[in-house]
Amino acid sequence: MSLDILGLSVVETAGRNTFIITKIRRVLISLRTKYQRVDIVEFEEFGRGLILDGLIQSTEADEFIYHESLVHPALTTHPNPKEVLIIGGGEGATLREVLKHNTVKSAVMVDIDGELVELAKKYLDFMHKGSFYDPRTKLIISDGAEFIKKEGSSKYDVVVLDLTDPYGPEIARKLYSREFYEEVRRVLRDDGIMVTQAGSSFFYPRVYDYVLNNVKSVFSIVREYWVWVPAFAYACNFIIASNKYDPTLLTPEEVDSRLRSRSVKTLLYNGKYHKALFMTPILRNKFSKD
Amino acid sequence: MSLDILGLSVVETAGRNTFIITKIRRVLISLRTKYQRVDIVEFEEFGRGLILDGLIQSTEADEFIYHESLVHPALTTHPNPKEVLIIGGGEGATLREVLKHNTVKSAVMVDIDGELVELAKKYLDFMHKGSFYDPRTKLIISDGAEFIKKEGSSKYDVVVLDLTDPYGPEIARKLYSREFYEEVRRVLRDDGIMVTQAGSSFFYPRVYDYVLNNVKSVFSIVREYWVWVPAFAYACNFIIASNKYDPTLLTPEEVDSRLRSRSVKTLLYNGKYHKALFMTPILRNKFSKD
Amino acid sequence: MSLDILGLSVVETAGRNTFIITKIRRVLISLRTKYQRVDIVEFEEFGRGLILDGLIQSTEADEFIYHESLVHPALTTHPNPKEVLIIGGGEGATLREVLKHNTVKSAVMVDIDGELVELAKKYLDFMHKGSFYDPRTKLIISDGAEFIKKEGSSKYDVVVLDLTDPYGPEIARKLYSREFYEEVRRVLRDDGIMVTQAGSSFFYPRVYDYVLNNVKSVFSIVREYWVWVPAFAYACNFIIASNKYDPTLLTPEEVDSRLRSRSVKTLLYNGKYHKALFMTPILRNKFSKD
Amino acid sequence: MSLDILGLSVVETAGRNTFIITKIRRVLISLRTKYQRVDIVEFEEFGRGLILDGLIQSTEADEFIYHESLVHPALTTHPNPKEVLIIGGGEGATLREVLKHNTVKSAVMVDIDGELVELAKKYLDFMHKGSFYDPRTKLIISDGAEFIKKEGSSKYDVVVLDLTDPYGPEIARKLYSREFYEEVRRVLRDDGIMVTQAGSSFFYPRVYDYVLNNVKSVFSIVREYWVWVPAFAYACNFIIASNKYDPTLLTPEEVDSRLRSRSVKTLLYNGKYHKALFMTPILRNKFSKD
Repeated sequence: MSLDILGLSVVETAGRNTFIITKIRRVLISLRTKYQRVDIVEFEEFGRGLILDGLIQSTEADEFIYHESLVHPALTTHPNPKEVLIIGGGEGATLREVLKHNTVKSAVMVDIDGELVELAKKYLDFMHKGSFYDPRTKLIISDGAEFIKKEGSSKYDVVVLDLTDPYGPEIARKLYSREFYEEVRRVLRDDGIMVTQAGSSFFYPRVYDYVLNNVKSVFSIVREYWVWVPAFAYACNFIIASNKYDPTLLTPEEVDSRLRSRSVKTLLYNGKYHKALFMTPILRNKFSKD
Repeated sequence: MSLDILGLSVVETAGRNTFIITKIRRVLISLRTKYQRVDIVEFEEFGRGLILDGLIQSTEADEFIYHESLVHPALTTHPNPKEVLIIGGGEGATLREVLKHNTVKSAVMVDIDGELVELAKKYLDFMHKGSFYDPRTKLIISDGAEFIKKEGSSKYDVVVLDLTDPYGPEIARKLYSREFYEEVRRVLRDDGIMVTQAGSSFFYPRVYDYVLNNVKSVFSIVREYWVWVPAFAYACNFIIASNKYDPTLLTPEEVDSRLRSRSVKTLLYNGKYHKALFMTPILRNKFSKD
Repeated sequence: MSLDILGLSVVETAGRNTFIITKIRRVLISLRTKYQRVDIVEFEEFGRGLILDGLIQSTEADEFIYHESLVHPALTTHPNPKEVLIIGGGEGATLREVLKHNTVKSAVMVDIDGELVELAKKYLDFMHKGSFYDPRTKLIISDGAEFIKKEGSSKYDVVVLDLTDPYGPEIARKLYSREFYEEVRRVLRDDGIMVTQAGSSFFYPRVYDYVLNNVKSVFSIVREYWVWVPAFAYACNFIIASNKYDPTLLTPEEVDSRLRSRSVKTLLYNGKYHKALFMTPILRNKFSKD
Repeated sequence: MSLDILGLSVVETAGRNTFIITKIRRVLISLRTKYQRVDIVEFEEFGRGLILDGLIQSTEADEFIYHESLVHPALTTHPNPKEVLIIGGGEGATLREVLKHNTVKSAVMVDIDGELVELAKKYLDFMHKGSFYDPRTKLIISDGAEFIKKEGSSKYDVVVLDLTDPYGPEIARKLYSREFYEEVRRVLRDDGIMVTQAGSSFFYPRVYDYVLNNVKSVFSIVREYWVWVPAFAYACNFIIASNKYDPTLLTPEEVDSRLRSRSVKTLLYNGKYHKALFMTPILRNKFSKD
């Protein structure tokens, strides 16, 4: 176990009292956009990665875990997702996963930071894999909360919320409120599905429960799942909600059949994985002081 | 997200280039036994914890995740585990989980470090919960590799290996070798089952595959699973093996039925969880340099 | 340059954006007194050390640098220091240095934390070296600010303030105020001298200037000096003040002569060192954001 | 004392068991030259800085401490330095200080890494301040050890060695050997002076003594001094040597007079500072395990 720590790194946190230092081999670009600090780097052990306001968002080594787990449970649970709205997800990897479903006719992606999207196009092609140039993609540079207020009702089959943590930068907090989820329900069709990442239930159980309760106050079917994301050094939680469809009712065979018929190729997600996601209890740290 | 880092902490590693700093509130005991340095501490966010040679072994907040996941898949897969051998597991929590199965008539626990066991008895009662005093327990202070060589054949139904990492301190390395697994098979009955923790397949894929191949060279049915352990800041892998029983063939209902009939109470493990463990792909970091 | 970081350590700060992690070999005692958390440890590279509220106070490897530099410039500058008051300095090392001057008839040491003093007696004998048992010593367990208010006027030749940093724990802040320095002047004889540690002028220039200006508003002769303290990872500033004596006017020969006649033995401090202290400019970091 | 640690930083070491994490605001350029990794960054609290192979070399906030202390004791001690050789010092700040002495007719700077010098020209103008374009400057891109072997004898009045640490990257080690110092003596005139930085005598006393003894085996007058460099989090040692001149014999007035007559302007260095440098004992950590 020979160690190598000296040099550039990024310091992150899991909980209030745990810090993670991850070594960087090289910095590709480092600047401040109108909205946030952006660093695109090459990690020693994680390949390329995106860091926003000092927090690792995604890395080449493990982004498939996060992005496949965010997108496919919701899209697969919907029997025919045609219109999809993504809020956040500036790297384009969530968009990439959404577009894999050939039922999708239109993917509207709303990100507040146009400069970030341009940087992703230039430096993170393994994330977006050309998705920004797919004719089904409509990219809108706008505040997600502002956008959704002005959007017409019943327009979408699935809404995917790919945001910074609910206890993270101020900018994303309102996108976890009950008011915002009511707007999400409004722009969804009656049988629509939404999914959001929700930070860490283990390290921030009170914030997680705040988000969970907000979703429950708006949708009748609410399911929770989580996956370990190595570069985060913790597991990331997700909440999926609908007034019609329940992701836990799909059999592995139905999931695999839908993926096949929609020509979806994945590294991790499949019918068994879908089932496993919903069979694992949610963890809350009783020693947390969030 | 107010942070609190200053003061005592423990510095650990995940992979060669990621470091984790976890804050300690108070140190209860700090000494060197004949075999290793032992620190028993109270963490800010994880409750009490055991640190061996500077590496967190288990904490009050999350030890149930590790110990339930190590023990119950193997014990539940065996239809009638009566004689169980544990190698390692000085805190007594693995022993505690084994003894929950009321089929167990005898649990032999072999740990090299008698001083550690005494410290665990004194400071970590939430770990062992009196298991050291259970009449079914036989505690043997000995090197596990030496012990097993002298042990008679076909004596055990289940062998549980609760060791430090295969890329960790030298002392445990030989307990991941093919030669050692052959001894394990010899002391197991023909329908016996063994399970071992196996470090991190993500951060140390080559070492993991070395262990996996050693197990496969000795047993015909080998299954893999992993769980995220928050205080480790990474997921821990496990390998379960037998020449007779396959844990993936049990239905959730069978698992729950066995737990019920054996009066096993758990916080996390149940039939669904058992199934989920074997439905999640094994992760290997392609950027790892182990 | 082989590195060794894993295991217990203490995390400290220099400035707002620099963190120092120092490895601990073993913890001797770890508890909370009525006033503060106390950890007495053995460092890998600094010998035994005292940590208060998570901040290294002094270590066996380098405490002489801090304590000799705090005490001797003031005591040597006074031609005949007989009555000395120390506020703070719970380890007893400041007391040890004061008592080296055989002119001293009485050393009153006031520390708020009696439990800390008892721990120092037990675990840190290399710090106090029996000074607590010297017949000239009078130990008073009391809040320094309360004590000084009730103390008679013109009683002391030298007052030594050995406190936590002015930007550190709340408890010490009032001991850097103008009001407090007026009390110090009152208990000093007309030709008395006071000295205080003053944190880091480089990392906290505004706080340092606040303290400096408070001292200047009460004393007419105010001199500044600083020394690097390795275990702090930064240089510690000191302010010495009097209405009569100026430490910069002593020649090296006068300093050495006074040390000789008072039988003072030191590791570092002598006439040349005394002169050098006052010949080095004070550093303030223009990029500091304190 | 509000802290801010999350985000990009550089991890360094002082001694084998102390680590320093310094926050970076922004990375200006990050690349690998033929010889080393170069990162030029903007620190949160130190302004711009140069990092080579992961080690902070110099920062805007404190580089004057290092560079003035390296250059002026040697140049001022020489009564008429005309020909100066600098080995290392890629940022150009050592060159800048050398050229301040208007006696200097020629400053030959030899650095192995031409790409680094170009980056310094572009990003670190506060370091070199145009020195690379001074007509007295002759920049040679070459291995210092190779260069000096081929250089004629008795050509220089002063040789300044501005190298990475003697316990640092392999590349600089031979430039601390007895053989190399013999070459330095050969290229110096009989009354020439050399000065070298020498790492940390406190944290690496054995390596420091190795260097010191090498210098002593070649020169008859050898003097030692050290200064705290805040961004290094430790004090840096220097060794100055000659067969003719002794820097400790200069009075403060002589130093100031030479600086005045040569039109040298400094932030820190002056006659008093010069004297103080040689009046402070050299520190060696008795607990060091180097």
